[in-house]
Order: sequence, then C-alpha cells, then structure tokens
Amino acid sequence: MSGPLDGVRVVDLTTVVVGPIATRTLADQGAEVIKVEAPGGDILRYLAAGSRSPAMSGKFINFNRNKRSIGLDIKQPEGAAALRALLARADVFVTNVRPAGLERAGLDFATLSALNPRLIHCSIQAFGRGGPYFNRPAYDPVIQSLSGVAGAFERSTGEPRFVPMVMTDHIAGLIAAQCVGFALYRRERTGLGEAIEVPMFENMASFVASEHLGAATFEPPLGPAGDERLLSPYYRPLPTKDGFITAHPNDNRQAFAFFAAIGRPELREDPRFNTPKARSENAAAFFELRAEALREKTTAEWLDIFAAADVPAARYNRLEDLLEDPHLAEVGFWEQDDHPTEGRIRRARTPNRFSGGMREETIPAPRLGRDTADILRELGHDEESIATMMKTGAAFAEGA
Amino acid sequence: MSGPLDGVRVVDLTTVVVGPIATRTLADQGAEVIKVEAPGGDILRYLAAGSRSPAMSGKFINFNRNKRSIGLDIKQPEGAAALRALLARADVFVTNVRPAGLERAGLDFATLSALNPRLIHCSIQAFGRGGPYFNRPAYDPVIQSLSGVAGAFERSTGEPRFVPMVMTDHIAGLIAAQCVGFALYRRERTGLGEAIEVPMFENMASFVASEHLGAATFEPPLGPAGDERLLSPYYRPLPTKDGFITAHPNDNRQAFAFFAAIGRPELREDPRFNTPKARSENAAAFFELRAEALREKTTAEWLDIFAAADVPAARYNRLEDLLEDPHLAEVGFWEQDDHPTEGRIRRARTPNRFSGGMREETIPAPRLGRDTADILRELGHDEESIATMMKTGAAFAEGA
Repeated sequence: MSGPLDGVRVVDLTTVVVGPIATRTLADQGAEVIKVEAPGGDILRYLAAGSRSPAMSGKFINFNRNKRSIGLDIKQPEGAAALRALLARADVFVTNVRPAGLERAGLDFATLSALNPRLIHCSIQAFGRGGPYFNRPAYDPVIQSLSGVAGAFERSTGEPRFVPMVMTDHIAGLIAAQCVGFALYRRERTGLGEAIEVPMFENMASFVASEHLGAATFEPPLGPAGDERLLSPYYRPLPTKDGFITAHPNDNRQAFAFFAAIGRPELREDPRFNTPKARSENAAAFFELRAEALREKTTAEWLDIFAAADVPAARYNRLEDLLEDPHLAEVGFWEQDDHPTEGRIRRARTPNRFSGGMREETIPAPRLGRDTADILRELGHDEESIATMMKTGAAFAEGA
Repeated sequence: MSGPLDGVRVVDLTTVVVGPIATRTLADQGAEVIKVEAPGGDILRYLAAGSRSPAMSGKFINFNRNKRSIGLDIKQPEGAAALRALLARADVFVTNVRPAGLERAGLDFATLSALNPRLIHCSIQAFGRGGPYFNRPAYDPVIQSLSGVAGAFERSTGEPRFVPMVMTDHIAGLIAAQCVGFALYRRERTGLGEAIEVPMFENMASFVASEHLGAATFEPPLGPAGDERLLSPYYRPLPTKDGFITAHPNDNRQAFAFFAAIGRPELREDPRFNTPKARSENAAAFFELRAEALREKTTAEWLDIFAAADVPAARYNRLEDLLEDPHLAEVGFWEQDDHPTEGRIRRARTPNRFSGGMREETIPAPRLGRDTADILRELGHDEESIATMMKTGAAFAEGA
C-alpha cells in the first residue's frame, strides 16, 4: 500500500515554509521527494527555537519529513549537471526561487520542458507575472501586510497585526501541492507536463476577498467591504465562569436549541433572531446575548449541555493543550519516532485518509546532504566521480 | 482551452464555506460542478451583509461561481433517486454532511461505490473518525478554538481571539480539493475511485503544530511549544513616520542590506545579528531594532530604499486598499461581470496559472435551483416527470 502519489518523482528546490510544505504534502501522499539544497542548506534549518544538533531545528524537521536531501552547488557546472539529470527523470519540479533567478540558472519552464516534456514545473512566487511586484522578494509577513490579513485585524481590534503563524506561506504551499495534483491528472490524459505559477499575494488576496468582499462584491458597492460578523469584538472564545468556550449555533435548529439551553426559549420567536438572515443582520446583538449567557456556567457544564443539544461548541485549547487533547489522542494524531540523529521526536500525522492506500514508510527529516552520495549513484555516478564532486564542493554532505 | 479538470463531473452536496470553496476550486480549474441544494438552499445565501436579491449574498456569490444548482428534496424518494442518478455518472462527490447523516441517507462510500466504483467520495468532516468528537457539528470558530489558532493569539496578545476570517473552513476546503486531485490522478492509474476523509480539526491542528511545535518537536521537549518570533508583539506592520510598513530581511544578504539602509552597517558584525541563527536566537532585539529604525522615515521613503536594496518589504493594505492595489490592478486580478440577475459584480480571478490551459467560460453563481430542470433533462427526465417533481417539491427552483 502507498499513497495516491506513489511513484511520482519530485525535485524540490525550495526553502523556508512555502515550498517545503508543498513538497511535504506531496511526500506524505507517497511521492518521492528529493530536496536539493545549496551550500549552507535551507535557512529554516536555523530558524526558531529548539534543536538537538546544529541545522536541525524542530521547525525544519516538521516541514521536511519524508524527503531525501542532496547537497549541490549549482553554480559549479558539475552541480548544475546533476540537477539537470534529476530533472530529466522527474515528474514534478517545485521551486520558490524567483523567476528571474530560475531563468539565469536555466531552470525556467521553457528550458526544462525541452529537456523533459512530461515535467510539471511549479513556480511558487511572491507576486505574479505581469505586475510591478513580479520578481520582488517576500516572506510571509510581507504578504500578510499587503493582502488584507493584517487589515482585517485592524478592523476588528483597531490595530493591524499578523496572524501569529506563517499562514500565507503555509496556505500558498498547500495550494501549490493542489495545483500539482491537478496537473498530474491532466498529464495522464495528455502526456504533457506544464508550467504552473502560484503567486502568494494573489492567492491570499483571493482568500481575503472571498471572505470580506461582502457588500463590495457589487458594483457600485452596496456598502463597505468586510464581513462584520467576523470583525466583531465578540469573534473570540468567550469567557465562562471558569475559563473559555466557543459556541456557534448557526442554522435554526442549532440557534433554537441554544436559546433553550440558555433558558431563553422565547428568543426563537424574536424577529431579530428567528432566521439565519435575521441573526446575520443582528449579529452584534446575537453575539452580545451569547457572550452574556455563557458567563453563567462553567465550561464543563456548558459543554455537556451543548453536546446533548447538538449545538456546535468546543473548549478553548492553548498551544500546550493540543498535546493533551482527548480527540487527538484517541485518533492517534500525535506520533513519536526515534530519529536516527535527533533522538525521540513528536509529529502530527497526515490528517487525511485515503481508502485506496496511504504512504506507510516514513523517512526521517534529513540532515543536509544526507542522501547526496546515494542519489548521485542512482544518477549513474561512480565512486570516483562522487569523490571528485565532494572534493570540489559541487556536491556535498554535512560532515563529509 | 480549458482547465486541468476539464471533463470531471463533481456532485457538490455542501454548504457554508468549507465545501463550497473546495468545489469552487475544482470548478475554477475546469470541472463541471453541480451544487445540490436542499429546500431553503445553502445557508450562506443568507449570511453576511450585501445582496441585491434575497438568498444571493455577496459572500454566497464569491464562493459559488462556476457552479450549477439543482434543488432537490432528498427526503422524498424521487429527489433521492435524482441524486443517485447524478452520482452514478459522477467522478467526484464532495460533501460536508456529517458521516452519520450520509449513512442514514445512503450516501456513504460503501453504498455509493457499489453504484459507481469510479466515484471519488470526499467527506469533509469537522472531526475525524475514531475520536470522541467524530460526528459532532462544528463551524469555523469551533475549530479555531480547539486547534490552537486562538491559543497562538493568547500567547501573542494576552487574549484568545479568532483570525477574522473563516480560515479553518477555507483551508480545509482547499485541502479537500487538493486530495480530490490526488485521487483523480490515482484513479487514472487504477481505474478505481476511493474514499477520502478530510477532518477540519486534525488538519488545523497539523497546520498549527507545523508552525508552533518548535522545541516540543522533541521528546522530552527542549522547551515550551511556540515559535517566539511569530508570537512577538512586534509581529505586525510597524509604524513609520506617516503610516505602516512591513520589512522582513531574513537571510544574510537581506539583513546586511537592511542594516546599511537604516544607517547601521556595523550590525553585520554584531554577534547577535550576523547569521540567521543568531538573528533567530535574538529575535526580540532584532525586531525591536527594526521597529525603532522604521519610525524615522515615511513609508514611501522606506519602500524606495528597500526596493533598491532588494529587501523584502511592502506597504500595509487595509481591506478597502486591496481594491486599489497597483500590482493587483496591473495583473488584472479584479474582474467585473454582469450577473444576469444580480447586476454588475466584482470578483477576484483565479490566482494560479496553468500553461496547459485554463477554464475560459465563467458561469454566474446560481440562484437556488436555477439549473434544476436542465439537469433533470440531462438525467433523462421528460417534461411531465419534471413537472411532477416540481409539483411535489422533490425538485424545485426558486420562483418556480
């Protein structure tokens, strides 16, 4: 048994988060992913707290499981040749190198599709082709700043802020993996690879617009952009007698069950609250009423009541609570493994289930260049050639 | 020319955001999506501000372009039979009906794969199989509350809050579309459909864990969970002399160019800031230094300086600024169309480009049951049968 992408060969020339989450997704679903690292390696190896060895941060480990690593200096001809040899036999190339850099290195779609017409060339970009920001560099906060994510916070709290996650990288990377899947499907029918361009800014602007265009969907706008329900100060876990809870009745059945649960069954007749449309139009009053009622009991009391009434509700988990969540524990969400060099590690398992088979073998996140020699051998290099490349630095492995 | 999913037939039994964004993604890439709506229709038709006609909110329009709509009461045998007929010829079934409800309605994978072995059955669930929350209802805020999204905010601001977007729905929906793509690829090779289960909670817990497990990646943990850089109070657009800016130098070249730009070139030798690892370990000091320096010039001055120095930086866009962003304008991001019943509307175009062809025809977001009669005809119903179904309410169309 393996995952749906069993047999798909991916060459991964990516760094940080946006590319690595794209290729990890492909790897988790069965693809063979070869991570090509430049001298020094992916910068994520060094970022964020927590590591047992240099260049093996917890964050790097999380985003790079199930991958092999080859160290290549593609500024040397032998390193560039090895990368081309990998691409000649690959199904998919994923990169977040800027388009101008790809062209300079001969890694643009036109060049590579001449080498391998079946290659799917997925270029993750900060900004799309055709606009003034094309080829500019960006990291996640730059995209949150531009795309309205921080703007939504200002509307809700008075202060522009970022989501405290590398959210736009993460989402664009998931979308890149999605696009690769679509192109793999088309290739089965046409026999041809293609170029995919995934611009982070445009993807996040589309994400935010779908949520918040609202009355500005219409031209002329029927009102300001922004979904006021989501921008409400009550859009947060709400205090109970002893902690926090989130309860979110939405359709009539749920809302009426909620009114009954808080001892206000008459509200189901109230014209402000008796239909989804009425509750949406009177969201501020509906939210305030919820916030007031929830203060009256403990979180555990409310959770029992809402579970019995089938009202969508949940407790509030702090980051550290996630590790103890009873549902996650019971579904076997947290896995532990002995990493060959980093010791015992914890990881979140692949969340989605495919009945046609899942990837079974797990490859530990690689040290820089762990698989350099093996991969060069697979490309037909003999031991002498490998030794020469290692000596010149055209290929390398940490500690070698 | 059409998109990579040209010819793929999708039956969409979903509501609100998580399912509709999944099927919109498939539709935008060329699939034929038939949205099956129960009496009353998708609740999103009524939510959030802004609509010219009842049941056609801006938000519904945004999430439901490129789809057809059939109104069916599947509690009536003729309605259920029509849905089964659609499923018998479909490639993909996407639903966010709870698993217990699917079984009651005979829409579980076992039943449907007996009807159509090539069917890909994608079940989007709030909580995955095997845990105590399985089959419980949830909406986005419930998942944000449980999955650590709100918890990350508490670490960063002292107060648990939600991201002011239907973020977990939106992300899980994008992942569902991704999984469908992978299964379509596998089906080309095996000839068989399969069941996919996409649990929102597990997907978001995995998202948050990848970001914030950090030192708790290791067992025993090397420190508390949480990436302190992302949780910093400075992780936000920073004030300039006349507004806000985001500048995010990350690698050495960018950081040293930033130090030069702020008139502190000597910092490249400072052991706190001279490598990515050093800057990550001294993130608080690095962020503070950035914040102080950025106050000294206007946003426009900084943007010119950082563009010349190739330092990742951008201005801050409020929600309404998105509509005027010069990059989005130049790439033709905002499209306008005359909707046949809702008048002139604005929408974000599909952000990703496929060189093998894109969907060209746009289908306006449907009124409830707009395509009921057409679709029944395609299923072989004659006019009399359609009239009977409309009369009993087994099938329906708004205004019919």
